[in-house]
Amino acid sequence: MRIDGRDNLQFRQMEFKLNYLKYPISSVLGVMGNTMVLVSVSFSDNLPDFCKSFGHGWITAEYRLLPSSTPTRNYNPVNSRSQEIKRIIGRALRSAFDVYKFPKHYVIVDCDVLQADGGTRVACINAGFIALVDAFQKLLKNGSISENPLRYLIAAMSFVVEDNQILLDPVYLEDSSADIDLNIVVNSDGAITELQFSAEKKPVNKQILDRIIDISFQKSAEIFDLQVNVLRQGGVEIVKHSSL
Amino acid sequence: MRIDGRDNLQFRQMEFKLNYLKYPISSVLGVMGNTMVLVSVSFSDNLPDFCKSFGHGWITAEYRLLPSSTPTRNYNPVNSRSQEIKRIIGRALRSAFDVYKFPKHYVIVDCDVLQADGGTRVACINAGFIALVDAFQKLLKNGSISENPLRYLIAAMSFVVEDNQILLDPVYLEDSSADIDLNIVVNSDGAITELQFSAEKKPVNKQILDRIIDISFQKSAEIFDLQVNVLRQGGVEIVKHSSL
Amino acid sequence: MRIDGRDNLQFRQMEFKLNYLKYPISSVLGVMGNTMVLVSVSFSDNLPDFCKSFGHGWITAEYRLLPSSTPTRNYNPVNSRSQEIKRIIGRALRSAFDVYKFPKHYVIVDCDVLQADGGTRVACINAGFIALVDAFQKLLKNGSISENPLRYLIAAMSFVVEDNQILLDPVYLEDSSADIDLNIVVNSDGAITELQFSAEKKPVNKQILDRIIDISFQKSAEIFDLQVNVLRQGGVEIVKHSSL
Amino acid sequence: MRIDGRDNLQFRQMEFKLNYLKYPISSVLGVMGNTMVLVSVSFSDNLPDFCKSFGHGWITAEYRLLPSSTPTRNYNPVNSRSQEIKRIIGRALRSAFDVYKFPKHYVIVDCDVLQADGGTRVACINAGFIALVDAFQKLLKNGSISENPLRYLIAAMSFVVEDNQILLDPVYLEDSSADIDLNIVVNSDGAITELQFSAEKKPVNKQILDRIIDISFQKSAEIFDLQVNVLRQGGVEIVKHSSL
Amino acid sequence: MRIDGRDNLQFRQMEFKLNYLKYPISSVLGVMGNTMVLVSVSFSDNLPDFCKSFGHGWITAEYRLLPSSTPTRNYNPVNSRSQEIKRIIGRALRSAFDVYKFPKHYVIVDCDVLQADGGTRVACINAGFIALVDAFQKLLKNGSISENPLRYLIAAMSFVVEDNQILLDPVYLEDSSADIDLNIVVNSDGAITELQFSAEKKPVNKQILDRIIDISFQKSAEIFDLQVNVLRQGGVEIVKHSSL
Amino acid sequence: MRIDGRDNLQFRQMEFKLNYLKYPISSVLGVMGNTMVLVSVSFSDNLPDFCKSFGHGWITAEYRLLPSSTPTRNYNPVNSRSQEIKRIIGRALRSAFDVYKFPKHYVIVDCDVLQADGGTRVACINAGFIALVDAFQKLLKNGSISENPLRYLIAAMSFVVEDNQILLDPVYLEDSSADIDLNIVVNSDGAITELQFSAEKKPVNKQILDRIIDISFQKSAEIFDLQVNVLRQGGVEIVKHSSL
Repeated sequence: MRIDGRDNLQFRQMEFKLNYLKYPISSVLGVMGNTMVLVSVSFSDNLPDFCKSFGHGWITAEYRLLPSSTPTRNYNPVNSRSQEIKRIIGRALRSAFDVYKFPKHYVIVDCDVLQADGGTRVACINAGFIALVDAFQKLLKNGSISENPLRYLIAAMSFVVEDNQILLDPVYLEDSSADIDLNIVVNSDGAITELQFSAEKKPVNKQILDRIIDISFQKSAEIFDLQVNVLRQGGVEIVKHSSL
Repeated sequence: MRIDGRDNLQFRQMEFKLNYLKYPISSVLGVMGNTMVLVSVSFSDNLPDFCKSFGHGWITAEYRLLPSSTPTRNYNPVNSRSQEIKRIIGRALRSAFDVYKFPKHYVIVDCDVLQADGGTRVACINAGFIALVDAFQKLLKNGSISENPLRYLIAAMSFVVEDNQILLDPVYLEDSSADIDLNIVVNSDGAITELQFSAEKKPVNKQILDRIIDISFQKSAEIFDLQVNVLRQGGVEIVKHSSL
Repeated sequence: MRIDGRDNLQFRQMEFKLNYLKYPISSVLGVMGNTMVLVSVSFSDNLPDFCKSFGHGWITAEYRLLPSSTPTRNYNPVNSRSQEIKRIIGRALRSAFDVYKFPKHYVIVDCDVLQADGGTRVACINAGFIALVDAFQKLLKNGSISENPLRYLIAAMSFVVEDNQILLDPVYLEDSSADIDLNIVVNSDGAITELQFSAEKKPVNKQILDRIIDISFQKSAEIFDLQVNVLRQGGVEIVKHSSL
Repeated sequence: MRIDGRDNLQFRQMEFKLNYLKYPISSVLGVMGNTMVLVSVSFSDNLPDFCKSFGHGWITAEYRLLPSSTPTRNYNPVNSRSQEIKRIIGRALRSAFDVYKFPKHYVIVDCDVLQADGGTRVACINAGFIALVDAFQKLLKNGSISENPLRYLIAAMSFVVEDNQILLDPVYLEDSSADIDLNIVVNSDGAITELQFSAEKKPVNKQILDRIIDISFQKSAEIFDLQVNVLRQGGVEIVKHSSL
Repeated sequence: MRIDGRDNLQFRQMEFKLNYLKYPISSVLGVMGNTMVLVSVSFSDNLPDFCKSFGHGWITAEYRLLPSSTPTRNYNPVNSRSQEIKRIIGRALRSAFDVYKFPKHYVIVDCDVLQADGGTRVACINAGFIALVDAFQKLLKNGSISENPLRYLIAAMSFVVEDNQILLDPVYLEDSSADIDLNIVVNSDGAITELQFSAEKKPVNKQILDRIIDISFQKSAEIFDLQVNVLRQGGVEIVKHSSL
Repeated sequence: MRIDGRDNLQFRQMEFKLNYLKYPISSVLGVMGNTMVLVSVSFSDNLPDFCKSFGHGWITAEYRLLPSSTPTRNYNPVNSRSQEIKRIIGRALRSAFDVYKFPKHYVIVDCDVLQADGGTRVACINAGFIALVDAFQKLLKNGSISENPLRYLIAAMSFVVEDNQILLDPVYLEDSSADIDLNIVVNSDGAITELQFSAEKKPVNKQILDRIIDISFQKSAEIFDLQVNVLRQGGVEIVKHSSL
């Protein structure tokens, strides 16, 4: 049994509070067990040159740990780890939207980790997806864009493998001691949009990878349901099937 | 009447959630209307040289705005304004404790503003005071220090003067248009520990300053009561009178 | 009696050399006892956006300590202390001028401390005020602005309280050991434009604050006289009464 | 057919020049088509604290693009992309060695990209692996360590998928337009140690991922052979089978 | 006899590989014994203001040491030494071209030192000169400029004096122990364009300086010949006489 | 005739005020016409490793322009120009002292330019030399060192060549338009310790260089006399002949 009594393939309690903040067009407080992330959507005027020449918009993410979010106070909120993670979050979120449908917008998704107990990047992707769907809905309503750029739903999950056991949604203690560390983002069409894993301690064979991917597709339904509900309560209706 | 319907000398709804975070020795989520600050207490090993030579500890504050905490996204979480404010918070908090009673501790009070609608420095001081009282109580219990360094309670308040009317606890819109901007910290002994005001638009006469100080002492009771209650619910008993 | 033999409410020898430098539109070498500051006025093209939208100009200050200006060599000429001080100087100087009367100018007041023996911020404000009056006079003459933006004279003073004695214009040694540290800027109309005090060691009661403010108004006359004389010798006539 | 006439699953010409530099304990100039990377191994004294407490050494990588290595001059040799890549390289290289067998060494692998035409991270991992095997051999010979930390050989490869075709070792032009971008590191035991892929444009189904992994294991033999040969010519004998 | 068996006034083996890189308009790998520098020419849009007002272009150099280029790993690729050297390189290269003949171009010459065994600045000037001649030839051909800005050839050489012996082109070990360190740039008209020497250990008399200058003019012929040949092989014909 | 009416080989009015500042062990305000530099000597604890292993001390210089010291406000007090100059000043000053005679001291010479009208580096070297002689005398007196490290006097001068005329000690306007720019440091033994010249516009022939060097030796007497007098008035006797 796991540290916190969960089954191996059980998520921690997840909660997403939409429009938690007053100023940004959209924001979500994402809670997964003790992990708390505050994600918000803003727009910048400085659309990069490569976007302008291709005629599409862009989504980028920022990721920071508050100094008191970690077991010992963290003096460097921006380091190479946070840089890697912000790029993963950015790619995952971009994949869910058609950047040609918001050609004028440079979208910044700020991810501030209030408390880090494992799975922060995954929490940011799931919360950020909700916030972006909501933000684009608002842009549609106020006429800033003419078509909804949503392509499909995405769900991010993390796994570790420890003693040949696959553990879903590990807490920090499980994560730091694991042989293998895997983060995956799947979509509501049954495809993978981002996969990243590292097996410093014990390289993984294809069978385990295969099994984790299968579990991802299976468990993604829980996240999709939650996202749909949170958005519905926020007044945004989406369907989770591939047809959208 | 004010923007949000309050009386001129009425506080916004205030709330302090003690031990909001899992890792720091103490932390407080402070809410004053729409203003939300997350304050936490940590210790660093690097006690400054001047402390070592005098044989006392130190309290310092950090102050940052999350990018999405302001009406438009804030690209520079650390600037000269935040530097000024962290020094004011640090001085105010130090005044309430006897630094010779924690000669080995370099205490860092991290103040992260989740949402800024006026009064963020004041919210940080009030929340930070609660967190420090709680943290020193824990140090006392685990034997790290032998005497409680608490000297008295402190209460921080902000005021603006607009059209000769004194407004307590202004929101951002009231603050940005005011003639005069004043922040004051008073203690439970009826003395002032920090006072700072600026009258760029319309210099203030002594009578108004006098009146604001009187109001401060009067209104401080509400903050002291709240602090005592929050700490009591967290298992820490303090008395607010000068005898302590 | 004080370290340097002065009476408690006596200024150190003060001197302001107008147009000390060759290149800036105006500059002042300010000397108060051993404290020496070099203040100069320049203009930048980059008027901030908020000024443009409101149709007014701006005055900002920079404050730096030369490495050899302090008792031990100072390795960080820009730190949080200098950031706090530059903001105080900036606010104090802005209060004396009507920013709507120089709508195109972004004025930078560089304050470089050659030697720091207490009262540097005060010296910078007094010297900076003279330099700004002179600079705006030159802008008037060359037709860059059409009205004199001067609203009133300002005088900055510092005080400490030590063993219940109020000391005006303290030197560094008096300042570093004091219970209470106060800086005040008053104007020639008998009003306060900036007040900032800290009582880390021994909180202050209202009576002492009251008394210091009264002294400030009284002693400001000496500074106003000096400013008027220095400017007259530099060819600029101002009157120090509220009518201007 | 591909831009440069290769078959879909054909590597570009690869070359690794061992001990290219005079000063570092080991270095490799790695060439893959037009891509050129210069990788070298150094040691630092500052072993991180977490290593000391666990009693093991560490390998970390640095990754920089020379300004003239890219199609247009690159003004920011260190950015979030380079930070992400240096972490991927570091993890991949660490996986191949037992960090407990060099408990005193903090190993820095500098990766400087002289010319970037796709696959730079992969070239750095393959070149870095050779340099590290050689460096540890030298440490063994001079008695600095007592056991060879080598666990197995690793081979890094990159793939893109474009119009459902899998292309091995893409050049920059193929990479920038692809639907899917995948980097994989496999070892000589037939396991995966690092896998990272992004499918911003067109999410991937499990079948394609499966197929790419199979190809990786197949094609890794060519890289292993090359590594063994280069090292043999440099006087270091390794065997590429899992028994080692 | 010298460390590496050379005569006192003998160059190390020199080699310049023109167009070593694929992307920049021109580039040269310069080798002088163990010293290896990679120099490339790029253009930036941001022509400085002072150039625009005078109606001429500009050439500037950047100089960086790769971390592994020095006997012990170099953690600060940009420091005051590198800043001094980049300015010397920039001035030397500018002197050889008429900046009024490329009024729109801001030319950046990136100098990356792959291996530093003495004489890196000299190698960068010699390699940079070749690359610039080639680059301007290409600009002439594509019509970007209408006249060749080449004024004359330049040759850079370094010397040390040790025990009253003059050593040409010293290696690092000779350089670090020498009494006197001199770098000179002469042109094909028999004039000096840049001279810099330092005699910290043993000040130099005029006779030695005289003698070194004479040697410089004499030995410059070898460098001019090499430059002419390298450029000819690259398809660029120049003559080395003052008539050009 | 020159801009300011001087003869071609005439210095501007020079003045050196020894012990201008209160805190540093020694300091000099150096004035050469409108050029004003404030130079002071401090000690740091962090003697570099290479000094410790060779058993000698070190002298290093810092060079900064105050923002208002230049014709237009200077936003970057530290740039590549200032880095080059601080190295030249450091080498020149080190040459005059035997670093083995102060094996424990890391000497920092801060050079702050209050006003820049040409010749700032030269003014800093001349002022810094006086301050160092004075500082070492004080170290001798208080027993920190046992032998005077002074080797000889040094004099720094700058020249430009314009229309084949040699101008000594040029002001900024003469400097910025000149063909040739030369700085030289000679010692009281009739030798050169530092020479640096650039001839971007019009390369120099050996005859002119020869002539400038001769003038330097001749004119150095004036600087030596001034230095000896200033030091004598400060209570430090030195002789300017090579015997010392």
